[in-house]
Amino acid sequence: MLNQVLNKIDNVQEESITVWCDFLKFPGIGTDPTHHADCRATANWLEAYMNGFGLVTSQHETTGQPAVIGRWGQEQSHLPHVLFYGHYDVQPVDPLNLWHAPPFEPRLGKTERGRPAIFARGASDDKGQLLTFLEAIRIWLSVHGSLPFRLTVLIEGDEEGDSEHIARFLEKQGKALKADIVLICDTEIWDDDVPAITTSLRGCIAEDVIITGPRIDLHSGYYGGPATNPIKVLSTLIAKLHDQNGRITIPHFYDGVKPISKVKAAQWASLKFKAKDYLGEVGQTTASGEKGFTLAEQLWSRPTCEVNGMWGGYQGVGAKTVLPAEATAKITFRLVEGQNPKKIRANFRKYLKSMLPENCKIKFATHGGDSTGIAVDEKSPWVKHASAALAEEWGKPTALVGSGVSIPVVANFKDFQNMESLLIGFSRFDDAAHSPNEKYDVECFHKGMRSWARLIGKVAEGKIK
Amino acid sequence: MLNQVLNKIDNVQEESITVWCDFLKFPGIGTDPTHHADCRATANWLEAYMNGFGLVTSQHETTGQPAVIGRWGQEQSHLPHVLFYGHYDVQPVDPLNLWHAPPFEPRLGKTERGRPAIFARGASDDKGQLLTFLEAIRIWLSVHGSLPFRLTVLIEGDEEGDSEHIARFLEKQGKALKADIVLICDTEIWDDDVPAITTSLRGCIAEDVIITGPRIDLHSGYYGGPATNPIKVLSTLIAKLHDQNGRITIPHFYDGVKPISKVKAAQWASLKFKAKDYLGEVGQTTASGEKGFTLAEQLWSRPTCEVNGMWGGYQGVGAKTVLPAEATAKITFRLVEGQNPKKIRANFRKYLKSMLPENCKIKFATHGGDSTGIAVDEKSPWVKHASAALAEEWGKPTALVGSGVSIPVVANFKDFQNMESLLIGFSRFDDAAHSPNEKYDVECFHKGMRSWARLIGKVAEGKIK
Repeated sequence: MLNQVLNKIDNVQEESITVWCDFLKFPGIGTDPTHHADCRATANWLEAYMNGFGLVTSQHETTGQPAVIGRWGQEQSHLPHVLFYGHYDVQPVDPLNLWHAPPFEPRLGKTERGRPAIFARGASDDKGQLLTFLEAIRIWLSVHGSLPFRLTVLIEGDEEGDSEHIARFLEKQGKALKADIVLICDTEIWDDDVPAITTSLRGCIAEDVIITGPRIDLHSGYYGGPATNPIKVLSTLIAKLHDQNGRITIPHFYDGVKPISKVKAAQWASLKFKAKDYLGEVGQTTASGEKGFTLAEQLWSRPTCEVNGMWGGYQGVGAKTVLPAEATAKITFRLVEGQNPKKIRANFRKYLKSMLPENCKIKFATHGGDSTGIAVDEKSPWVKHASAALAEEWGKPTALVGSGVSIPVVANFKDFQNMESLLIGFSRFDDAAHSPNEKYDVECFHKGMRSWARLIGKVAEGKIK
Repeated sequence: MLNQVLNKIDNVQEESITVWCDFLKFPGIGTDPTHHADCRATANWLEAYMNGFGLVTSQHETTGQPAVIGRWGQEQSHLPHVLFYGHYDVQPVDPLNLWHAPPFEPRLGKTERGRPAIFARGASDDKGQLLTFLEAIRIWLSVHGSLPFRLTVLIEGDEEGDSEHIARFLEKQGKALKADIVLICDTEIWDDDVPAITTSLRGCIAEDVIITGPRIDLHSGYYGGPATNPIKVLSTLIAKLHDQNGRITIPHFYDGVKPISKVKAAQWASLKFKAKDYLGEVGQTTASGEKGFTLAEQLWSRPTCEVNGMWGGYQGVGAKTVLPAEATAKITFRLVEGQNPKKIRANFRKYLKSMLPENCKIKFATHGGDSTGIAVDEKSPWVKHASAALAEEWGKPTALVGSGVSIPVVANFKDFQNMESLLIGFSRFDDAAHSPNEKYDVECFHKGMRSWARLIGKVAEGKIK
């Protein structure tokens, strides 16, 4: 049953690449109002494409760009229900002069490592990646006429922009979008040819902290000493947020954070994820985060508090003997599974207020978009059989990796539909997503389709119910 | 002998005010190249004016605006030698729309407190102030035909701009400008009608500190935790510069700093200089500097370390989950008598380097213009008899106060001519020096001239030799 599909995938590869390139021609930059008509056109194209292989499609208005939904076999309630999520919007293309060819005229070329690839904005993120799944579905349906699961496909147009649009949409849809699992194809393989499933994501909350002291900027000769300096106050507060071991000092900050299991620690150790290599590329030599944790642990399983920006006082040339009236810091926390964003925000504010010296005031601002940390249950049959399917295709054991980033929609699916997500992607680290000359290797596109076919095969075999 | 002069000062007051207003008409803004011809014209006027009452004058090129020198009685080596220093350049006048009348059209008006005053840029700082001395000399000479001391008057044109010009000039002049004492009229009286001598000034050194970490700004999802954050590093270094008592922690920082004598502490306590009043005006309630010291002590006798500006990372609207590659702070130290600026700079750099964590680098930049802290020997006959002279004129004991600011030229006179300075001024705190609608009370101008005449009288009586 599977082999027929794999063979057809191989045989119609040209056809799949043509579909891919058609999709890539739409300059659907969701954050740019001058491209909103292009987003609509992309959504129309997607609807027609999915309709063409048997999905029942619909287009949905959101507070941002339209979302497209495609469904198959909704009435067959005895089958498991899979929701596939992706996004058709792409990153802006500037700086355009660094592109070797126009970003919306996809072309087959070779990568620096000599591999055939399609170059275009969105080639990888996320058009190429999401098509690996949709093409696998298209071909499976063309071979067998049916799928072994109910399918809901949701492709949105605001992933690269404001994640609140899809959050509001998912909240509104509620149970109408409930499925057994969410499949997402927007992540990387591990180490070039080792397939990977991302089983954890960090959440994120953002806080601005503003310290005000004197009513106006002061002359440091007339006031230096007795007057409170907001930059010194803010620096001291920031310094106190971590102890000497890099551990965050906010009371109750680690409430709910689970210790890293021995199994997971061993799994990650086997990845040979080295600070020298990973951090070396950005000019760092060692993992300088929380003491007692490896690079992978610091990045994937431990929460952080980062200062993203800070400013106050005189920033021009030369010296100016001024005591500033105000200082500001932009702070974000990366959170892990078990931490409660709301409580952390409240404790953070309370903690800073408790340490505030005399003669100054503190204000806070936030920017919304809170997301919780996520960890997938690695014992679930989806993870187990997806691992096997990927390993069969790529010939190497599947790496179960974490990720330090936040994908808010994964938290939304958890919050609004109570669904777990399975993150499987085939992007390579040289894909230049978000950068000029974005590409996606033809090999990844092809093996990606075959990987999904193998996972569908596991469901067809009744291994996942 | 003195009374004749005091009477004449009173009798020719109109004449003195005319001289003052003539002087104020020159828009000699030294920092503005479009006003350099006006600076030259001011210098020419000054030379003619001093020449007119018997000084031998000369104009001197500097690396900035011309300096004017006037001398009297240089050959009379049995007399003490007084150098009077002032500046003819004035601050820029913007914002012009806040002036009630054109800033270089001096006019007699009334202050908000109902006192007659001349309003113009420079009315107080420093044209009005320096004329109190020169008019006293003019009138003394017109009455007696001679002075009881040799006199050198030095009026420069870069005080409001780059203090390096006069520093280079003084270094070049060396012993040619050596006198027994420098008199400077560029400070305030105390508490509206209490005369004051400023007996200490703080010095100043400036340092920029730049922390570099990652090669580029990093995504806090992919690198947050293991990568070193330069803002956190810089904040921590800044926080460590003071201990919990507000004492600076740099090794050897307090070397050479003398304890405050009981006499001085009592003197300052008697001034009733209250944090609530002084700091209240700028929105502060208590003197929050070094613990165990009063407001006056924190401001006048204790060195400080201030962060004048700091910045790094994202400073725009909303959140950006970035780890910055760099963070910068602009720091100045106010120094007191006994501290060595060079050693403090070296110890500061060494100290920060010693605390630098892994994965980052530190760079320093300076801006020149170092100045040492200054304390005048309060037992010198100049201080003693000037105090008496002022008290006789104003009817209240003279306050011996400190100042937290730096007047680099005072350090220059100390360094290049080994001269002490006596700072006596008649400015009131509502003079709005540097601000729109600058003024100088006619009372201050008049009593200022009489105060100087009384000091000249002390020398004439042989009390100062």
